Amino acid sequence: MMSHKRASRRLFAPTPGGTVAFGKTILLVLDGLGDRPIHALGDLTPLEAAHTPSLDALAAMGECGLMHPCGRGVRPGSDVAHLAILGYPPTTYYTGRGPLEAAGIGAEMHAGDVAFRCNFATVEDDVIIDRRAGRISETASLVGALNDIQLEGVTFSVVRGTGHRAALVLHGAGLSGAVSDADSHVEGGRVQEVVATDGTPEAERTACAVNQFMNLAHSILDGHRDNKARRSAGLPPANALLPRGGGVCPSIPSFFERYGLRAACVAGGGLYRGIATLMGMDVVDVAGATGLPNTDAVAKIVGARSALATHDFVFVHIKGADSLGEDGDSRGKTKFIARIDAALEGLVDEAVAGTLVAVTADHSTPCALAAHSADPVPVVFAGSSVRTDSVAAFGERACADGGLGHVSGTDVMPQVMNLIGRQHLYGA
Amino acid sequence: MMSHKRASRRLFAPTPGGTVAFGKTILLVLDGLGDRPIHALGDLTPLEAAHTPSLDALAAMGECGLMHPCGRGVRPGSDVAHLAILGYPPTTYYTGRGPLEAAGIGAEMHAGDVAFRCNFATVEDDVIIDRRAGRISETASLVGALNDIQLEGVTFSVVRGTGHRAALVLHGAGLSGAVSDADSHVEGGRVQEVVATDGTPEAERTACAVNQFMNLAHSILDGHRDNKARRSAGLPPANALLPRGGGVCPSIPSFFERYGLRAACVAGGGLYRGIATLMGMDVVDVAGATGLPNTDAVAKIVGARSALATHDFVFVHIKGADSLGEDGDSRGKTKFIARIDAALEGLVDEAVAGTLVAVTADHSTPCALAAHSADPVPVVFAGSSVRTDSVAAFGERACADGGLGHVSGTDVMPQVMNLIGRQHLYGA
Repeated sequence: MMSHKRASRRLFAPTPGGTVAFGKTILLVLDGLGDRPIHALGDLTPLEAAHTPSLDALAAMGECGLMHPCGRGVRPGSDVAHLAILGYPPTTYYTGRGPLEAAGIGAEMHAGDVAFRCNFATVEDDVIIDRRAGRISETASLVGALNDIQLEGVTFSVVRGTGHRAALVLHGAGLSGAVSDADSHVEGGRVQEVVATDGTPEAERTACAVNQFMNLAHSILDGHRDNKARRSAGLPPANALLPRGGGVCPSIPSFFERYGLRAACVAGGGLYRGIATLMGMDVVDVAGATGLPNTDAVAKIVGARSALATHDFVFVHIKGADSLGEDGDSRGKTKFIARIDAALEGLVDEAVAGTLVAVTADHSTPCALAAHSADPVPVVFAGSSVRTDSVAAFGERACADGGLGHVSGTDVMPQVMNLIGRQHLYGA
Repeated sequence: MMSHKRASRRLFAPTPGGTVAFGKTILLVLDGLGDRPIHALGDLTPLEAAHTPSLDALAAMGECGLMHPCGRGVRPGSDVAHLAILGYPPTTYYTGRGPLEAAGIGAEMHAGDVAFRCNFATVEDDVIIDRRAGRISETASLVGALNDIQLEGVTFSVVRGTGHRAALVLHGAGLSGAVSDADSHVEGGRVQEVVATDGTPEAERTACAVNQFMNLAHSILDGHRDNKARRSAGLPPANALLPRGGGVCPSIPSFFERYGLRAACVAGGGLYRGIATLMGMDVVDVAGATGLPNTDAVAKIVGARSALATHDFVFVHIKGADSLGEDGDSRGKTKFIARIDAALEGLVDEAVAGTLVAVTADHSTPCALAAHSADPVPVVFAGSSVRTDSVAAFGERACADGGLGHVSGTDVMPQVMNLIGRQHLYGA
């Protein structure tokens, strides 16, 4: 018999007898997909301008709407938007990007730990010369030289990411994530002293510990043999770690605990893998992904469909549209969307076969702004027994006429649970 | 460098380097514009029945929706509706109409002061004979006779408004705005004793002070030479002040602090000028406004466009539709809307030139009710790079098909900030 406490935390309806079959779900998030009409594209958005027969087929067979990831008028980062879309209100669960990125590269964290994302950078006389240390690709030995350092009762762990990326985890009593960034985010800027942002003793203690660690790390890295070799080769030394996005390790109930769904994640980016990891999803590495936008997407969809054999819910993340939007490259974004669409034919097959397929974005990245915006993103639920509407094209404006109307990010998972017949009954 | 406290209170994104250009905005509020279908107008609303090529052009080039100023089902006064539309949730910032009206006629107020709007009235034996004292136009001398009165540690200031209007400000320790009106709001009614509405000692003290002041003011005014002259001329004496709408001076962060936008206000009504004043907007007096509906609107739009040269955001208020609605004059309201529309051609030009132009109302005033209602009002955002929709007419029912769907008053400013690329990023 389940204890009362466990039962009360579950949001899903228990399967009667434990054996009744229910629908499976693929949730695809196309990062930064949304945009605004662009004159050079004939006053269409990149999504509207792109040839997207697969997305349009899903729209035609599904129910569409516009989604405000973190509510109307909120301009969300990818981190908070994904938490919302996966049903974890960021006002409750978001503690900063650091722990999410750290989890994504395999950092081991425990409740109360504080994590940062970091760059290996080139610093001379406290001035940041290169935020990515010449986009250094091999940091294993440098990371090894920094590990298991203890200062004032705090143990520091550095975890290697891809390229110049790393995570820093602080373990110890009385720490806080309310501290500022060391990274000035601009080259030519000075390394910033980390300070407490809420004035608590815990934040003061954490800021002090990070500053001490950074100084020690700088002296260790500056004299490291790898950096001597880089200098000899005319390369910028990776002689500093620049932490940013600090936050305490969030206490996140697992996706299974929350929904009763065995979930998998297919994503390349550390942030998305980190979010999935913290939710207890299985992070699936897809074979055959070449890294090129098209084959990568094909491999991801193939991988997601395979994962359905052993999972109830597969979250797929595809980057690309966001980066092109941030570059202000409207034609590039349009072409990318068309290339992705070709890979999504398999999703149409899944929806036809009865799998619930939900496609949306985590935010808009209008090329005209070259930044995230608060404009809502299109969303479609296809397959299963959705109430189809008149929308036959997957676009920002077409979906405004959809049957779902305007929804929030936190409406997505309840709708998934509803459509697969697993939503908890309220009342009796 | 901004202190942490200041930074955390700002809702807008800092401009990189402080010099990047961003779009300017005109927000036009047409008071009481919304209505319901009227049989005598062929089952159209006054806005639908009126010839409105300018508003329709904005709708065609913009994104439309329906706006519930204070949320669905709430029947708002103009005061709370304007606070909401300008991004100040009235549940947080509204303390009563008195302080807003008082600020609008230039009353000096400080935190903790309590302000009322007042009428000069004609009272005999505690019965209100004329709530406007024969619409007296000159009260300077009467106001002068009432100033700097002190009673029980409270200093009273009377500020002259237009015609029979005035404001009363109480300055002193331990005051409260939770007191009732002295004005019975009907002629033939008795002057009401002001009482505490929340039972606190502060409210009891304030009510007692106001009652004492009213008695003293009545005796001063009744014997005043101006009133002797009025009686001689057969005019009703302005021998009483009737306070109503009491409230403490609200603590309102400035519009600039909140949004980083230099704002101006073009409005005639004291309430709207008061709200703008309390928000730290520059209140612009427009030249050439004759007071006639048409020329007044033309001058206001010309004034607003001029103000854009030195401001980022101009709030324009046009009264008229509300009064005609409250008179139940559907044909008059229709004609007024058509006349206003002719003045709005300049707004279409602004939108074409890239200025963000938002047009909406503060509430509906259906002629059939002759009062405010909770019916939503149309809203359009035009110019900049908005996601245009299929709506080509600015009407209550046409805008129901708009891309924005149903929004709240407090959604307006976030959408402005989003469209001009100044919305703060949530998350990372």
